[in-house]
Amino acid sequence: MTTNKMRGYVSLAADLRSGKTTPRAYLDETLKRIADLDGKIGAFVVINKAGAIKAADASTARWKAGKPLSPIDGMPIAIKDIIETADMPTGQGSPMWAGTDWKRDSAGVHALREAGAVIIGKTTTTEFAASHPWHKTQNPHDGTRTPGGSSSGSAAAVGAGMVPAGLGTQVVGSILRPSSFCGAVGFKPSVGAINRSGSHDHFSQSCQGAIGVTLADVWAVLRAMADRAGGDPGFAGLAGDVDFSKRKKPARLALLETSGWKATSEGGRKAFAAAKERLAKAGVELKGRADDPAIETAEKAMADALPATMAINSWEGRWPLNTYNDLDAGKLSTAARERLKIAEAMTQKEYAGLIGKRDAVRATYEQMADRYAACVTLGACGAAPVGLGHTGNTAMNVTASYLGCPAITLPLLEDEGLPLGLQLLGWMNGDASLFEVASWVASDAFGRSDLVGTLG
Amino acid sequence: MTTNKMRGYVSLAADLRSGKTTPRAYLDETLKRIADLDGKIGAFVVINKAGAIKAADASTARWKAGKPLSPIDGMPIAIKDIIETADMPTGQGSPMWAGTDWKRDSAGVHALREAGAVIIGKTTTTEFAASHPWHKTQNPHDGTRTPGGSSSGSAAAVGAGMVPAGLGTQVVGSILRPSSFCGAVGFKPSVGAINRSGSHDHFSQSCQGAIGVTLADVWAVLRAMADRAGGDPGFAGLAGDVDFSKRKKPARLALLETSGWKATSEGGRKAFAAAKERLAKAGVELKGRADDPAIETAEKAMADALPATMAINSWEGRWPLNTYNDLDAGKLSTAARERLKIAEAMTQKEYAGLIGKRDAVRATYEQMADRYAACVTLGACGAAPVGLGHTGNTAMNVTASYLGCPAITLPLLEDEGLPLGLQLLGWMNGDASLFEVASWVASDAFGRSDLVGTLG
Repeated sequence: MTTNKMRGYVSLAADLRSGKTTPRAYLDETLKRIADLDGKIGAFVVINKAGAIKAADASTARWKAGKPLSPIDGMPIAIKDIIETADMPTGQGSPMWAGTDWKRDSAGVHALREAGAVIIGKTTTTEFAASHPWHKTQNPHDGTRTPGGSSSGSAAAVGAGMVPAGLGTQVVGSILRPSSFCGAVGFKPSVGAINRSGSHDHFSQSCQGAIGVTLADVWAVLRAMADRAGGDPGFAGLAGDVDFSKRKKPARLALLETSGWKATSEGGRKAFAAAKERLAKAGVELKGRADDPAIETAEKAMADALPATMAINSWEGRWPLNTYNDLDAGKLSTAARERLKIAEAMTQKEYAGLIGKRDAVRATYEQMADRYAACVTLGACGAAPVGLGHTGNTAMNVTASYLGCPAITLPLLEDEGLPLGLQLLGWMNGDASLFEVASWVASDAFGRSDLVGTLG
Repeated sequence: MTTNKMRGYVSLAADLRSGKTTPRAYLDETLKRIADLDGKIGAFVVINKAGAIKAADASTARWKAGKPLSPIDGMPIAIKDIIETADMPTGQGSPMWAGTDWKRDSAGVHALREAGAVIIGKTTTTEFAASHPWHKTQNPHDGTRTPGGSSSGSAAAVGAGMVPAGLGTQVVGSILRPSSFCGAVGFKPSVGAINRSGSHDHFSQSCQGAIGVTLADVWAVLRAMADRAGGDPGFAGLAGDVDFSKRKKPARLALLETSGWKATSEGGRKAFAAAKERLAKAGVELKGRADDPAIETAEKAMADALPATMAINSWEGRWPLNTYNDLDAGKLSTAARERLKIAEAMTQKEYAGLIGKRDAVRATYEQMADRYAACVTLGACGAAPVGLGHTGNTAMNVTASYLGCPAITLPLLEDEGLPLGLQLLGWMNGDASLFEVASWVASDAFGRSDLVGTLG
């Protein structure tokens, strides 16, 4: 197993301030890791080495002058190739758009540059951040296995220790699943929390989030984005701050099976049973559907999360697939052409019914918020499956997307000797609070304070 | 004054079915009007004559076979140049993007093509659908005056009788104001009612709507779009149907001054006083802020609609102005660069406060919905002002944008011998009901059934 040799970035603040290390030195290490590993893994579509060096040198000068722009000043960040960058093409994981220069930074990428980050390269995604993997990126822990998708390259790059963090997007399971498979911290924020403008991503459940080596890195990246680009237009955006020096022990966690449970592996279920024991020993009260009717009600309400999500995404994905199909149908995957057919058979009225039901399910779920600090379940159905022609089962990841709630997966478990995440689901716009719970779970219950890090 | 010689399109259904006229004949008339008039007016940026002829011929064959795809099959429609079209460049009213081929139809344009419409050309817009008019489009009724903006070309083309309908967008006053100035029917739908994907238009208050010669044309265009592209992702989309053969007499209308009233012209106020008399004579009960405390409360709540809208738009417009400024600051207007500076001085927290207040104001406004069929006010501050370097005062138009409610302006009044609209504001997602009220007002109160038309 390739273990992650990259330290978190924002935890280095003291060393950056003192000059013990510099953004340029960190970048050089990053570029060396990429040169050593990415020929095999294939996490990157394109790298802007010259641009990254220039940005890292400028950041080095700022830290030296005692004037960093933010905690992530100088941090190398990889960008999922569905998100526009002014200095690199955005290919959307599609042969139709490979190499296309949109000439713009997305709202979030521009915010990262304003915060001093080093935008190092674009990472592979499945076609249009949906299902088909035209790029055959490898899992850094076992090259015969998928890194998961759709944020395949960002998760593989972080999991391999090439970069401390990468941007991802999730509308079904595209941040949590690859993070679980690649052994990374993955965070899908509350719906609307991060401005998606300039990302080719028009779904109502979709979120921009981050994959990183520590909770502090992931939070710092998204905080920097929200401060400068806000949430999606009409949303207040990512709320609050997190004090990583404090731990917030959750009094009570709700155990969620979700509809994906029947698809989990035996190893995954064993790992989860052990995790429950560990949490209980650490003093957390755990309740499941058999213990609390409110959990049972929520589990039942969200049982259709996957088919409902697929139907919602079909209607919302009618465009741009229809205009892409006109442009060059031969450059669409079979899966994309099939999704378009499903969309064209749907009606506006059916869609209205689907989102009305989703609102009701969200309200049912949120009714547990006053009694539980968070919910806990598996980060994926099991270890990354063998094969690079598919990106694994989304069943354990769709719930947070459908609910619109924040979710974090922590690389605390194993299945088949490979990484498996422990997933925490929070409450709408309670992203900061979920980070505090996750920090306690990682450090106090699992002894992995290396996954937490510090801020500043 | 150039009077509108173009008949509504959807009202011709019987003639199209019988073969008395054809989409090709209608298009030929349209192209002739454009050839005669647009050299002076300058409503169009680009025309796809060959594509339009091909589409009209295909439509002619469908009507002949008794198989039109929709009521708008064969209808020539002009598209505001902020909205992407696969067969024509999308310049966003900006020298930075003039001639840029995005290779995509927007969601709405694709829906129009699916419905059989003839996408005839792209119409001028102010820069990024905001304030600066790089194009010097003339008002069709007086070439020394502005057609209004930002949907300048669509309103001028309809007002001049070149096309039966054009798409527009509105985030402040960009559909209602130019419609009022150019003597057209203008409709800004409920926020979210029409899918904006593929339009360069990322504001939370923004809507895609239509400008046309009849209410039936405008409704049919938007109904065809919503049926095939839905609303914005996460919104149910334009609701309901309208039966234009029935009139719905409003028992009671609320008279709104809005904060723009102090900017209205004397001629505008006189015209509105006469309109009130006419409505009262037709048997409508009219109540104003002095008669009903609920109206007074709503008027007070929305008094800051304009500054609040400008502040919301500033934050939401930070992107893409920041990345455009990086690309080529010299190709941005001074106004755009100033908006960016304002945005960069704002915080996420300020924005959260602004949209929280907007939600509260919307709720206050909607409290009148059970007592009034609609609200009525002026469609603009007065006649189109002289000069092509600005597009007129938005003060009477911002209210519906801020409230998110549907609004229609009807070319029923005059000021300085030029067109002036009578504006009706409805209730959130009550778009169909507002069309029924507007149909009654135009035909029964003002004797202008030519502005209503029929559907099918």
